[in-house]
Amino acid sequence: MSERNIVLVDPLPRTLDLIMEPDVRARLERLGEVIVSEDQQMPSEQVDALLADTVLIFGQTDMPKERLDRAPKLKAIINVESNFMPNIDYQACVERGIWVITPASAFSSPVAEASLGMALDLARGITIADRQFRDGVEEYGLAGNTDTFRYAGAPIGIIGFGDLGKELRELTRPFKNEVHVYDPWLPKEIIERLDCIPSNLDDVFTRCQVVYVFASVTSENQGFIGKQQFDLMQPGSAFLLMSRAAVVDFPAMLDAVKSGHIRAATDVFPEEPVAADDPVRAIPGLLLSAHRSGGTRDAFYQLGSMAVADAELIMKGLPPQLCRRADPATASRLRSKPVSVS
Amino acid sequence: MSERNIVLVDPLPRTLDLIMEPDVRARLERLGEVIVSEDQQMPSEQVDALLADTVLIFGQTDMPKERLDRAPKLKAIINVESNFMPNIDYQACVERGIWVITPASAFSSPVAEASLGMALDLARGITIADRQFRDGVEEYGLAGNTDTFRYAGAPIGIIGFGDLGKELRELTRPFKNEVHVYDPWLPKEIIERLDCIPSNLDDVFTRCQVVYVFASVTSENQGFIGKQQFDLMQPGSAFLLMSRAAVVDFPAMLDAVKSGHIRAATDVFPEEPVAADDPVRAIPGLLLSAHRSGGTRDAFYQLGSMAVADAELIMKGLPPQLCRRADPATASRLRSKPVSVS
Amino acid sequence: MSERNIVLVDPLPRTLDLIMEPDVRARLERLGEVIVSEDQQMPSEQVDALLADTVLIFGQTDMPKERLDRAPKLKAIINVESNFMPNIDYQACVERGIWVITPASAFSSPVAEASLGMALDLARGITIADRQFRDGVEEYGLAGNTDTFRYAGAPIGIIGFGDLGKELRELTRPFKNEVHVYDPWLPKEIIERLDCIPSNLDDVFTRCQVVYVFASVTSENQGFIGKQQFDLMQPGSAFLLMSRAAVVDFPAMLDAVKSGHIRAATDVFPEEPVAADDPVRAIPGLLLSAHRSGGTRDAFYQLGSMAVADAELIMKGLPPQLCRRADPATASRLRSKPVSVS
Amino acid sequence: MSERNIVLVDPLPRTLDLIMEPDVRARLERLGEVIVSEDQQMPSEQVDALLADTVLIFGQTDMPKERLDRAPKLKAIINVESNFMPNIDYQACVERGIWVITPASAFSSPVAEASLGMALDLARGITIADRQFRDGVEEYGLAGNTDTFRYAGAPIGIIGFGDLGKELRELTRPFKNEVHVYDPWLPKEIIERLDCIPSNLDDVFTRCQVVYVFASVTSENQGFIGKQQFDLMQPGSAFLLMSRAAVVDFPAMLDAVKSGHIRAATDVFPEEPVAADDPVRAIPGLLLSAHRSGGTRDAFYQLGSMAVADAELIMKGLPPQLCRRADPATASRLRSKPVSVS
Repeated sequence: MSERNIVLVDPLPRTLDLIMEPDVRARLERLGEVIVSEDQQMPSEQVDALLADTVLIFGQTDMPKERLDRAPKLKAIINVESNFMPNIDYQACVERGIWVITPASAFSSPVAEASLGMALDLARGITIADRQFRDGVEEYGLAGNTDTFRYAGAPIGIIGFGDLGKELRELTRPFKNEVHVYDPWLPKEIIERLDCIPSNLDDVFTRCQVVYVFASVTSENQGFIGKQQFDLMQPGSAFLLMSRAAVVDFPAMLDAVKSGHIRAATDVFPEEPVAADDPVRAIPGLLLSAHRSGGTRDAFYQLGSMAVADAELIMKGLPPQLCRRADPATASRLRSKPVSVS
Repeated sequence: MSERNIVLVDPLPRTLDLIMEPDVRARLERLGEVIVSEDQQMPSEQVDALLADTVLIFGQTDMPKERLDRAPKLKAIINVESNFMPNIDYQACVERGIWVITPASAFSSPVAEASLGMALDLARGITIADRQFRDGVEEYGLAGNTDTFRYAGAPIGIIGFGDLGKELRELTRPFKNEVHVYDPWLPKEIIERLDCIPSNLDDVFTRCQVVYVFASVTSENQGFIGKQQFDLMQPGSAFLLMSRAAVVDFPAMLDAVKSGHIRAATDVFPEEPVAADDPVRAIPGLLLSAHRSGGTRDAFYQLGSMAVADAELIMKGLPPQLCRRADPATASRLRSKPVSVS
Repeated sequence: MSERNIVLVDPLPRTLDLIMEPDVRARLERLGEVIVSEDQQMPSEQVDALLADTVLIFGQTDMPKERLDRAPKLKAIINVESNFMPNIDYQACVERGIWVITPASAFSSPVAEASLGMALDLARGITIADRQFRDGVEEYGLAGNTDTFRYAGAPIGIIGFGDLGKELRELTRPFKNEVHVYDPWLPKEIIERLDCIPSNLDDVFTRCQVVYVFASVTSENQGFIGKQQFDLMQPGSAFLLMSRAAVVDFPAMLDAVKSGHIRAATDVFPEEPVAADDPVRAIPGLLLSAHRSGGTRDAFYQLGSMAVADAELIMKGLPPQLCRRADPATASRLRSKPVSVS
Repeated sequence: MSERNIVLVDPLPRTLDLIMEPDVRARLERLGEVIVSEDQQMPSEQVDALLADTVLIFGQTDMPKERLDRAPKLKAIINVESNFMPNIDYQACVERGIWVITPASAFSSPVAEASLGMALDLARGITIADRQFRDGVEEYGLAGNTDTFRYAGAPIGIIGFGDLGKELRELTRPFKNEVHVYDPWLPKEIIERLDCIPSNLDDVFTRCQVVYVFASVTSENQGFIGKQQFDLMQPGSAFLLMSRAAVVDFPAMLDAVKSGHIRAATDVFPEEPVAADDPVRAIPGLLLSAHRSGGTRDAFYQLGSMAVADAELIMKGLPPQLCRRADPATASRLRSKPVSVS
């Protein structure tokens, strides 16, 4: 076997500079001979030429079984786009002991932070009050609080209790909310350990004054939150859509806001970028965020450092600790559209 | 001595309904014979007629020494406006064992919550991003984060570490900030116990990416934050003025924001209501709040329930536990303008 | 008036070296001309000679009204023994604006820590298991846990919710106990703010598997915990007496332990030192501590540094922040026996 | 394929009653046809007869490749002894998508609790003070604290940062210790996220006043803590051995305690039960615990409920969430002796 140990880097739509600060890049270099394709996906012939000596792949290179057969030294494929896609033979990787992982939780921290900020905004009317002030129609003191509620102590609901939902739960602790969680993939023990109440979907909407949606979209849950759920919410409640537009019946959400029944914030839209004339831009009770809550500079660097840290463990024969593993069965259920912009 | 025990209620600019829910009102009634003047300050002759049998005063009635001399059963004066004023002979009260207290901290919780919300807004650009979206100039993903920073982990500064500063400190715990505190009235032990770093004023501005001002205004600290301090801040930092406009050189603050050097949020203004044509309404980097962060319905009810709970203790011969006591020496230093709107 | 500013130090049964590390001692020296009497209480004639120039007293000097009359510059009397005694005219001090304070909470932290340690010991059988091991009768695994219970999640009760009770409450947070508090001097708000349940005395004993007693002894509560309360406890529960023996009917407590009904730990005894032949020494279910849970070296230093820090504030005209103030009404209710050993 | 769905239960050295309360047992029954062998390991012929219809195995049944080949419906093997053993073909399980898991973390919570209790005992001298009191040689107050230190604020070290180390870290939070962690299997990010300092082995011993050992024993780390490390500890420090005796040079540990250099607590011994005449029973500075810190009744029930909860997820096609997965590579490194007593 050759003595070359190739680290194949094929990170589109990311670039190495986007995801690695110099010290992390240096750690990457210590793992092997780094070969990068950044301006395009790595050409097939180049991949094929490198496979025999490749020990690590950082990126979204197609890896069907026939390629895995030609990569005897491969230890891990580390997706740096953060969504598992069907271009890998996951079962074959499992059989060969090749880790397939992704540092997706790098985005949890900035999204959780922005989510709490937007929830406080909806509860206390921060953006609306600023807009009224600019329009010369502000109200002072108690009169300025007729449509607000205290976030502290309000019952809150979390839909989707992965890394992101758990991080939001920690951020909200000082506010002493009763926290209801809906996540059909988890046993109640996981939810109760973080001092939350396992709930079904409708109970979350009925009981909670603030509902956060962090659920991933799968082949089974598209549009699972719709008119029925919004109708269950108490008037003046707040709804935050922070994960993927497809989990919600988007027009039903807009209707619930336009009617004045609830307020909402959304970081995602069915089509992005949103059309210039989309009426969504003019709904007063909707707090608008252009898919920007996760995309902070530190999150991309975090993505890279998690990827490299786990690669270091794998090269020592240890299991990865920071990235999420692709389980063949569940990877196939996930249906996120790959991002087209970073 | 007469068997009447009068509870004199003179709450202007508050009303009893504003500050007491029915169950608290019922507890008030059990403390004595309640006599209320709500549409005007209680007339002098009425006060004078009641003094001999008055055990408790809720409100801002003038209580010079000559009135105290005629109130032998008086146990406490409970200011429900929340600022001590010079219309009481504090020293005479101390000598007679009459408690003079105020439930001022009732407003701490809503202000702390709004402060964190506004700080997250400034850090992550929430209101500005919503405005850009409405204007059709939103940026997605990383491009939408060029002027933002992560609140989590940013060094923060707190100026004024009373109930409000301490409550903000607790709310910010999950974000793991290094917290610098400037409060010349406190020993370093109080600051260190809450895992904060005692600092001088300029260090707070030099080191912190977010600076919260919660300081009360006194005869000595008017305008103590000015151009010198704003110049010390790192570009793009966030400044939040949440207590009283007079502690800041307001025009200097506006200049620092208009120049793009910092972003700011303010809940208070030198003159309120703000004039319709005040240019402050059009500064893009300033988050505007019309003295509304503390005036939530629950805060007024909290004011009343704290007042009654302490009155109950006092009537049992126990010291009050929830309200702040007027220390004669320090009461005279405080210079807050009484509120003219509730 | 003379230019001398005397700091009179009369700390028996403490000594200055016991309570102040060199840096704190240096701060003390900066407050005035320090005059110390350590091997005996300061002689009357010496006190009388110094009164006219004394600004601060650290210690337990008798200060009746006639002495206060001759101490026009006196700003504070700081008791460093930590119990207020009837040798001061508290009312006269209040009228003159002389602070009477004590850094009693210096002992809260070590006592709270030891209390949790002893509670874990009783719940999990730590000392008893060690004794059995030495006696060759240890049991392994599950068999070694027949008489134990998990502290985590057990309902706990706190009797007396001053600094010490509150500190224990914080230490026990990670164990997620339901915490019931009995303290007749406090409004329920204070208890609920720390996520505890206000309870009456008997409910604490009925519901809690661990009961901590931190109550001070007053003229009204001697022996208020007795056979009736112990009978209410569930078999195998744990009782910890950490404040003063006089609040408990001590023989009733010993009976409840000897019968095997409950386990207990005590840091205090009706007479100290305990007689060599006292049968208390041989009760198997009683964890014995010789009034040593608070008396750690750091606690004495803490006592001194709190005293000096507050003296510094007082000399600047600010109110003390760390020490407890003597309220004339309540000071007279406290009945702790002064300590005779440090 | 047959319609029978067999749940094969082969839990020796556990029994079903030991690990499942009635409600959990009822959930088990709903997963399939439960067939149990409790008084002996299930006989080979019985196993072989059931394999074709078995969907779940709870227990330690031998499962080499040839048996897996005959178990086409098998979805999971759930070890309820809590140590992975070499009697399973882990790689073959991975290839077939058969989960091999164990609810080992059920014991983390009671061990962490007992560990903190023993650490407080060593720091504050609780058991020793009780022993002295019984011997009539107790010391009161400060004199009773000459050999103690405050746990609060002391630097502590954690060796092995799995579920148990992390749980101890949470329990110790209120004490505000600086926490140093040594775990060569983890990236520094995991350690830093819990506000700990990644350290090498010797630094932990040099810097920490309390050192907890929670490390599992592997083929590579036997006796990795020895005289060199104990010599590095500061005099009077505390050492707690809570995982497996084999990770420590046990005689070196006893020497360090006998010499008075350090104090220690141990829950494990090279041979258990310990011989009646073992001199370890008489070492004054050693706190003795007969492998009983994890074996509480609630822990065994927790073991069973975690096993069933994950089995429920697996039967729905979802990944397990509570149990630890056997990674083929690392399972083979673990060298714990199976327990012979429950």
